[in-house]
Amino acid sequence: MNQNLLWIEKLKFNEQGLIPAIAQDYRDGTVLMMAWMNYESIKKTLSTGEAHYWSRSRSQLWHKGATSGHIQKVKELFYDCDGDTILLKVDQIGDIACHTGARSCFFNAVQIYPQSNFLNSYSCSKRGQ
Amino acid sequence: MNQNLLWIEKLKFNEQGLIPAIAQDYRDGTVLMMAWMNYESIKKTLSTGEAHYWSRSRSQLWHKGATSGHIQKVKELFYDCDGDTILLKVDQIGDIACHTGARSCFFNAVQIYPQSNFLNSYSCSKRGQ
Repeated sequence: MNQNLLWIEKLKFNEQGLIPAIAQDYRDGTVLMMAWMNYESIKKTLSTGEAHYWSRSRSQLWHKGATSGHIQKVKELFYDCDGDTILLKVDQIGDIACHTGARSCFFNAVQIYPQSNFLNSYSCSKRGQ
Repeated sequence: MNQNLLWIEKLKFNEQGLIPAIAQDYRDGTVLMMAWMNYESIKKTLSTGEAHYWSRSRSQLWHKGATSGHIQKVKELFYDCDGDTILLKVDQIGDIACHTGARSCFFNAVQIYPQSNFLNSYSCSKRGQ
């Protein structure tokens, strides 16, 4: 095996042979999306310099942006301390990562209710039942 | 049910009842770690304003930083377009997210070999076998 690929052997793929991969804009740090990679998609990403994932819905290698043109040129690639997640810092072509046309897939914001606010709203809801 | 928690019903938990959660520094966008949440840990995170995960190794609710002091105060919480990943923007107390003492868990950088460089290094390796 190519010595340069030995690090892949350290990764902890799940029972489907997949590992989560976070794509982050290399310019401003925006988290763009999270998808899944397998061994083949990691090798393709390294050899082409463009993000390849494994499409769980289509059960096939997915060259991100092959159809839309919104490819991701990989500037840096990291794996985490326990080898079960990958982080890609990418140049997102078209500045659109999401299939909805949004820049980032993370556009659904949720309100946080620390301490008493949460309990109050929960109590109100319970009383309203 | 509290109307404020209805969004959780939209999430796609995996067969273990878990969903990946990315923690990102809310100040400079550094991706700090990726861990897993279940329904209970999401509710705890919302009610306390501090990140709670599900520890897969210990099979228990994990209040991040309860032992080390490196808690994560959640500033913003998002879920993605298809409801299968969460993003937390956090104030990382102590500026250390990783159990190794590193700021971020993503400290292992991998070299990328686009196009001919990759093929050349692969060929060299093959020849050396």
